[in-house]
Amino acid sequence: MSLLRSLRSPSLIRAAHVRYNSSLPDIDAKNLQFTRTSNPKPIPQSSTLVFGKTFSDHMLTIPWNIEAGWGTPEIKPYGPLALDPSCTVLHYAQTVFEGMKAYRQESGRVLLFRPDMNMKRMNSSARRIALPTFNGNALLDVMKELIRLDKHWIPKEPGHSLYIRPTLIGTQKAVGVSPPTDALLFVICSPVGPYYPKGFKPVSLYGTTEYVRASPGGTGAYKLGVNYAPGILPQKEAAKQGYAQNLWLHGPEHYLTEVGTMNMFVVFRKDNGTIELVTPPLDGMILPGVTRDSVLCLARDHASGKHQLPGLADRLVVNERPVTMREVKEASKNGKLVELFGAGTAAVISPVDRIGYQGEDVHIPTGEGGMGPVSRAIWKELVGRQTGAIASDWSVVVCDS
Amino acid sequence: MSLLRSLRSPSLIRAAHVRYNSSLPDIDAKNLQFTRTSNPKPIPQSSTLVFGKTFSDHMLTIPWNIEAGWGTPEIKPYGPLALDPSCTVLHYAQTVFEGMKAYRQESGRVLLFRPDMNMKRMNSSARRIALPTFNGNALLDVMKELIRLDKHWIPKEPGHSLYIRPTLIGTQKAVGVSPPTDALLFVICSPVGPYYPKGFKPVSLYGTTEYVRASPGGTGAYKLGVNYAPGILPQKEAAKQGYAQNLWLHGPEHYLTEVGTMNMFVVFRKDNGTIELVTPPLDGMILPGVTRDSVLCLARDHASGKHQLPGLADRLVVNERPVTMREVKEASKNGKLVELFGAGTAAVISPVDRIGYQGEDVHIPTGEGGMGPVSRAIWKELVGRQTGAIASDWSVVVCDS
Repeated sequence: MSLLRSLRSPSLIRAAHVRYNSSLPDIDAKNLQFTRTSNPKPIPQSSTLVFGKTFSDHMLTIPWNIEAGWGTPEIKPYGPLALDPSCTVLHYAQTVFEGMKAYRQESGRVLLFRPDMNMKRMNSSARRIALPTFNGNALLDVMKELIRLDKHWIPKEPGHSLYIRPTLIGTQKAVGVSPPTDALLFVICSPVGPYYPKGFKPVSLYGTTEYVRASPGGTGAYKLGVNYAPGILPQKEAAKQGYAQNLWLHGPEHYLTEVGTMNMFVVFRKDNGTIELVTPPLDGMILPGVTRDSVLCLARDHASGKHQLPGLADRLVVNERPVTMREVKEASKNGKLVELFGAGTAAVISPVDRIGYQGEDVHIPTGEGGMGPVSRAIWKELVGRQTGAIASDWSVVVCDS
Repeated sequence: MSLLRSLRSPSLIRAAHVRYNSSLPDIDAKNLQFTRTSNPKPIPQSSTLVFGKTFSDHMLTIPWNIEAGWGTPEIKPYGPLALDPSCTVLHYAQTVFEGMKAYRQESGRVLLFRPDMNMKRMNSSARRIALPTFNGNALLDVMKELIRLDKHWIPKEPGHSLYIRPTLIGTQKAVGVSPPTDALLFVICSPVGPYYPKGFKPVSLYGTTEYVRASPGGTGAYKLGVNYAPGILPQKEAAKQGYAQNLWLHGPEHYLTEVGTMNMFVVFRKDNGTIELVTPPLDGMILPGVTRDSVLCLARDHASGKHQLPGLADRLVVNERPVTMREVKEASKNGKLVELFGAGTAAVISPVDRIGYQGEDVHIPTGEGGMGPVSRAIWKELVGRQTGAIASDWSVVVCDS
């Protein structure tokens, strides 16, 4: 273990905790106020959708104040927020967000996927950046109302969904750097198509060593805005060199950490014929992704025999452990690399076909149809559960028709 | 040098550069539009001012668009910004800011201090976070118009000033993580009193090892919002333990990097009787502070004999070099520590009297009146130049009366 890694103590990160006066009102779904739009927007053709550029008719807002606690949840027409130019989020990046998807079945039933995980993580992120925490179930209740109201915005085509973006920002009107007196939670919804409308297209990655996404003692384990904007420039530089995304490498060992804004998995073939699925451990630098957790759960259930993944015959072992570029490069050379893929809410599974590393390209096998055998089996089960085609307790019903 | 430090290559960080179409319009002061407030606010008593909570009557806004370039600069009544809930700054923390001060002399003359440094750094920060760059002189010209319009907001009392906050935010209406199509530059002004109205009060620091402010390959060398909100929780934890601020320690060696949101200086007495003024080098983790640079310039001019600082008799050497807590602790024990202080625009010089480190307090001498001999001599010269009491080419005249 390097010096870098020895600093990554999750217990220290867990100590990060701000408590606000718990006797103040929490989010209360009973107080929800509705204002329907009088000007519904035309719903675009699903084929014209670009990720995250179209928004539905309504949004949800919930204000917070240090003396009053959480205020009235309001569903109202989608429109601009009036923010004081001094407010904290604009200067000091005090923002937390989540990404979720609502799927619509043919019957009209609308489903969310493991939304409790997002609520839990949003609270954990809020604590880290000194924003107020809240009752996740109550937020989920009012979010469901929003989704029900705008459910006709969920495209019906396969692979489509309504991307839901809960965001919490510091709105204190002061340019001192201090804990917030005011905050605003808002939720907006965007109809989205499948990430790969014409089948899986493996992406190329640039192995980034000039910049870091996260560091020991930093904020990489939280879904904070601060982890995203600094990645835009490295992404542009990777694109200039002909790569689709960054592969964030960390430390002198060049540990693989994340892919663009996704978690990362590698699959090795071991000498005994076993297949090993590896993802970096939650050491404080890795986002605890909902898709990451779901991939791990499905793979472990397969490995233990609890639930076999159809189409995956190999004996599987699942490990959360550090992986270096050296290991990946050698496995590629020796034919021991099975596949490498990103996993996240937006793209679900994103196969990789090459990594630009130290001036040369490391080849990554992708299997037929652009997807390797392990990710394909997991993806099928995962998407089945997300859309409700495969029944599971990961599905939460928003409405039945 | 540790593995950590070997990664801090400034040349890699300088490679961070985004160019936008340079044939597009830049900021043009000739296009400035004015809308005066019809409702001037009452100007508060200077004695009631709290840092960064009161704002003057007007603000400046300049929009940017990827196809149109920089748009019309507008000075208008201070008021809320209407921001689409999807815009980049609210989700991905795409924000850059500066902090400057305008001083008002008894004659009515208004001065800025080294504003070219702020313009240069703001452009450097914008590049790092993929926001558009601009002509700093043109921005300065329109900022001067704003300051002239609101100059009656600059408190007349000694040590008071108008704190000026230029901010640049990404306003693209989309939740994809990508380079911006739209941005907004705005400037607001806040009348402020002296940081230490009743004379210097040394602060206590908690030596933070659980969290980092910055890391190699990160964004610590830029004035980005992302470097600030993550520090609020560590600051709260330091306060809970009875310390005023964090001393950010980095790496297993516990290098001293910054103090709260200020740069940091230590003064040692060497065996040969020389006094050594030390600050950490600009290795990619340290903000290139305007006050930091000014302190170094004044100290170096004194050391070289070019310009003696009144009241400082000692022979001085000035070094930008790494300092560890071990060195500070040993110097404290052996009577070799002269002083330790923070330096930044808001507080100018902030003396320190103790550091909580690994369960015990390291004592820091503070000298008479709460301030050590080196910082006092530098502070007097610095404040003289800032307020125009000492003539220098660091002063830029905004208006003569």
